Amino acid sequence: MERVYNFSPGPAALPISVLEKAQRELCSYGSTGMSVMEMSHRSKMYLDIFEGAVAQLRKLMGIPADYTVLFLQGGATQQFAAVPLNLGGTPDYVDSGNFARGALKEAQKYGEVHVAGDSSGDNYTHIPETNFRPDASFAHITTNNTIFGTRWPELPDTGAVPLVTDMSSNILSEVYDVNRFGVIYAGAQKNIGPAGVTAVIIRNDLLGRARKDCPKVMNWKAQTDAESMLNTPSTYAVYVAGLCLDWLAEQGGVAAIEKVNIEKAKLLYDFIDNSTMYTNKVLPEHRSRMNVVFTTPTKELDDQFAKEAGKAGLANLKGHRLVGGMRASIYNAMPIEGVRALIDFMKKFEQEH
Amino acid sequence: MERVYNFSPGPAALPISVLEKAQRELCSYGSTGMSVMEMSHRSKMYLDIFEGAVAQLRKLMGIPADYTVLFLQGGATQQFAAVPLNLGGTPDYVDSGNFARGALKEAQKYGEVHVAGDSSGDNYTHIPETNFRPDASFAHITTNNTIFGTRWPELPDTGAVPLVTDMSSNILSEVYDVNRFGVIYAGAQKNIGPAGVTAVIIRNDLLGRARKDCPKVMNWKAQTDAESMLNTPSTYAVYVAGLCLDWLAEQGGVAAIEKVNIEKAKLLYDFIDNSTMYTNKVLPEHRSRMNVVFTTPTKELDDQFAKEAGKAGLANLKGHRLVGGMRASIYNAMPIEGVRALIDFMKKFEQEH
Repeated sequence: MERVYNFSPGPAALPISVLEKAQRELCSYGSTGMSVMEMSHRSKMYLDIFEGAVAQLRKLMGIPADYTVLFLQGGATQQFAAVPLNLGGTPDYVDSGNFARGALKEAQKYGEVHVAGDSSGDNYTHIPETNFRPDASFAHITTNNTIFGTRWPELPDTGAVPLVTDMSSNILSEVYDVNRFGVIYAGAQKNIGPAGVTAVIIRNDLLGRARKDCPKVMNWKAQTDAESMLNTPSTYAVYVAGLCLDWLAEQGGVAAIEKVNIEKAKLLYDFIDNSTMYTNKVLPEHRSRMNVVFTTPTKELDDQFAKEAGKAGLANLKGHRLVGGMRASIYNAMPIEGVRALIDFMKKFEQEH
Repeated sequence: MERVYNFSPGPAALPISVLEKAQRELCSYGSTGMSVMEMSHRSKMYLDIFEGAVAQLRKLMGIPADYTVLFLQGGATQQFAAVPLNLGGTPDYVDSGNFARGALKEAQKYGEVHVAGDSSGDNYTHIPETNFRPDASFAHITTNNTIFGTRWPELPDTGAVPLVTDMSSNILSEVYDVNRFGVIYAGAQKNIGPAGVTAVIIRNDLLGRARKDCPKVMNWKAQTDAESMLNTPSTYAVYVAGLCLDWLAEQGGVAAIEKVNIEKAKLLYDFIDNSTMYTNKVLPEHRSRMNVVFTTPTKELDDQFAKEAGKAGLANLKGHRLVGGMRASIYNAMPIEGVRALIDFMKKFEQEH
């Protein structure tokens, strides 16, 4: 079977060279005589794999020495609880989309939360204006909103208040200065690797503040002391994530892929803006480079588009039910040829309808 | 590279036929044109895989219709917190080993706990005597103790009090009547599949009792309503687990593999008991069929044994630091030939030293 162009929002397309390497090594890794899936997480052979992935992430993102990197389980949604349980106090949260709101709702379970921005009234077609408080315990944002296709064009200045961010859908897609953040967390299944791993990057002075009722596996300090292995981690997913990180390094790293990502997004938005059939309602300065949402004039045509695109080898273009229409998720592993193939299909579809 | 016999306590050996199938399908699953790792967890192609794994586990264990099956993340250690957060009240816990104690300690974070049995004073060489209370909110046991190599020879009668069990290291290795349990949970990485998945089996009347401060991803009712997909599950690990469950069905199911497991364990214990070099200190009636611990007369010989065994293609036999000596974990995927090869090596080592 020929591989398709997969525009899934996550789990998402992985580089074919990574999949082929994983395939070659599946039954026996190197000279170990066993699959990576069968290795004890405490064995040297596996620790080399795990630590290699951590080191590659550190290098790619330029993570300073005073930050800890954890690979945990449970996804960003688990961190929605872990963040308030580890940091406490009265935080600021910005409601800029579905997952941003999920993080906010979960934090409200553990105490008072100040809403420092909210664009829900405009159906999240832009990043909201903000009013961060200088005495917040931390400030939480979502750098890229997967469902609504928006992105913070620049990071807010929260002064001495630690900026905590869910970076699940645009981590490693553009250069960020990690020093600007207190905590970065990201589910792996978009730009890091397969589902089942969550990267958590924490400035060390924020460790050790957890509430007493924080479950042990969610306690960042306990996980730091155990080097992410308080219990068995998602061993194979971390291995494949490591292969993806190595692939990104081979592409020239984050700065190099950012250029490609800008080009991919520009191609698609330019085509949409110049077409008479397709529309994107996001404020142009706040448009996501990773998730491009668009609609045709009618729901019927939208459905037909997604269906016919699927048959043409362009998979998973149906938009999220909260937004409707289509969504093309064009993460790092989506080659520019995939975007060109999508545009060609869009042209053809426009001519035919 | 020739495959070794892998006696790792977990992540553990997987059937080679499963690995080979996963290898064949890695880059493109069936006619989908994408890897299972790349599939949206909401897509029909992936839901078929996920639901197939759930259905196979139900069939293999004979799980009644009034029980829910979840595949979650975070391992058994995460359930150590989820159990008290979902069930509340004042429970009974039995301290029969390292992980049993971990579950107890975590439960104490959320309220008073009654210790209904404790064999720590005897370094856990047997399952303790118990005094369960009729008014406990639930009673927690660990059916098999991985580190100390013990197993409950029969389930305790807790009357109307729901019996909650960590079955991580012997699930699917012997027939259990699920009706005896309120909740069964198990990390996958021993007898279900690769690390990154936790099976949680809950009698439906125990759903909906969660404390308000239970993190959403840990809330069994919320996960039940979302069919384990409150957020992205560990998609690829569930797929491989499904292959392992299909493999077990092909072996004749749990009753058939139980016979093999009894035979494997008997071979090894009989050899140990009849040797002059090797010792197992566990009360014979409480010996584990999955984790066989043994020592030579000295620590130096123990170290030499593990090292030479490794060179002879018998991997991961070094015991846990809490017990010392050796541990042979002989889960479902360890063929009887592996146990015979180990015994042959033990004979040879005994003759040479």
